[in-house]
Amino acid sequence: MTIKLYCMGESGNAYKAALALELAGLDWEPVYVDFFGGETRTDEFRELNVMGEVPVLVDGDVTLTQSGVMQMHVTEKTGKFGGATPEEQREVMRWVFWDNHKLSSQAGVTRFLMNFLPAEKRPAEVIGFIQGRLKAAYAALDTHLEGRDWIVGGAITNADISCCGYLFYPEPFGFDRAEWPQIDRWLSNIQNTPGWKHPYDLMPGSPADRA
Amino acid sequence: MTIKLYCMGESGNAYKAALALELAGLDWEPVYVDFFGGETRTDEFRELNVMGEVPVLVDGDVTLTQSGVMQMHVTEKTGKFGGATPEEQREVMRWVFWDNHKLSSQAGVTRFLMNFLPAEKRPAEVIGFIQGRLKAAYAALDTHLEGRDWIVGGAITNADISCCGYLFYPEPFGFDRAEWPQIDRWLSNIQNTPGWKHPYDLMPGSPADRA
Repeated sequence: MTIKLYCMGESGNAYKAALALELAGLDWEPVYVDFFGGETRTDEFRELNVMGEVPVLVDGDVTLTQSGVMQMHVTEKTGKFGGATPEEQREVMRWVFWDNHKLSSQAGVTRFLMNFLPAEKRPAEVIGFIQGRLKAAYAALDTHLEGRDWIVGGAITNADISCCGYLFYPEPFGFDRAEWPQIDRWLSNIQNTPGWKHPYDLMPGSPADRA
Repeated sequence: MTIKLYCMGESGNAYKAALALELAGLDWEPVYVDFFGGETRTDEFRELNVMGEVPVLVDGDVTLTQSGVMQMHVTEKTGKFGGATPEEQREVMRWVFWDNHKLSSQAGVTRFLMNFLPAEKRPAEVIGFIQGRLKAAYAALDTHLEGRDWIVGGAITNADISCCGYLFYPEPFGFDRAEWPQIDRWLSNIQNTPGWKHPYDLMPGSPADRA
């Protein structure tokens, strides 16, 4: 049965699930959620996910939310991306948690504030504050990637698929690959992975639709 | 061998690991980290954890960071708090990820800004913005807890131990139990769990030390 992923192209959190499904070669299809039209705030959507968030994954009887859980589900089904040893498995989870706590969470909100709010509603102090915290996160990741092709072990894992969630988007949010040479090289490794797709090519919905 | 947890009482993220260790009955001891004296920014600490964060757990040969990974480790060692069925296990991970993404991450930074920065350095716009996002998180959790004693299933799990991370602290950050009746009732359930301790009783370090 085809796995359904409720998502939209603009969501880096949805991308983390979509990219795992795609690179694992699973049979899946996106179901477009009209986030910008308010769909995640409707009662119907809240019944699907009390957290009111995209993505939601439906695989037969199993309904999942939180991209990290979807990545664990892909690993359970296919044996892929979870790490090759118990040590690697713990390291993968470590970076997925860190990404949720410090990287994607803050990159996502900053990108939203800077690109998807009307110019007069953009809170400059908030944007500057979160950008400062993000800089510390980029620095930690860049340092970790010195001498490594992947965040954990010798191949792409959920750690990479999670941490790259917002880093391929063209909309400005204060992240410039050129400033972080290790991150830049690592993102190229991800882009060169067979089957890789940009978020706007993997899921429906992009700012171009609303231009 | 006694498990060592590098931590300080002020850290709700450390509390999530300490409470899991304590309630599981494992042999552990806290190692005080002088966060407010700058210890997590030293080279020595960065070598222990490139993320520059507390907590860090050392269990023999295994060094872990990220409270969610430590909770998984406690579950692996003891069979406790991970959920009773595959469905519950996924639900537990879902709420632990959500907590890292939306609840503890934002509660922690707001509490820091409001209580551990000098009054003249507190960014009012940032505090107001994050408090607005936290309100949405409290509302989601309160709604989910209607008719439930625990976040997942019929007993305390890592979901509860994670989501309560910052909610017992006395310092104001905009959270008032009385405003959220389901959360209030659920926090009492946690407090009534045999062996429960307040973060300042479980780990060394509290604002009183610096008063």
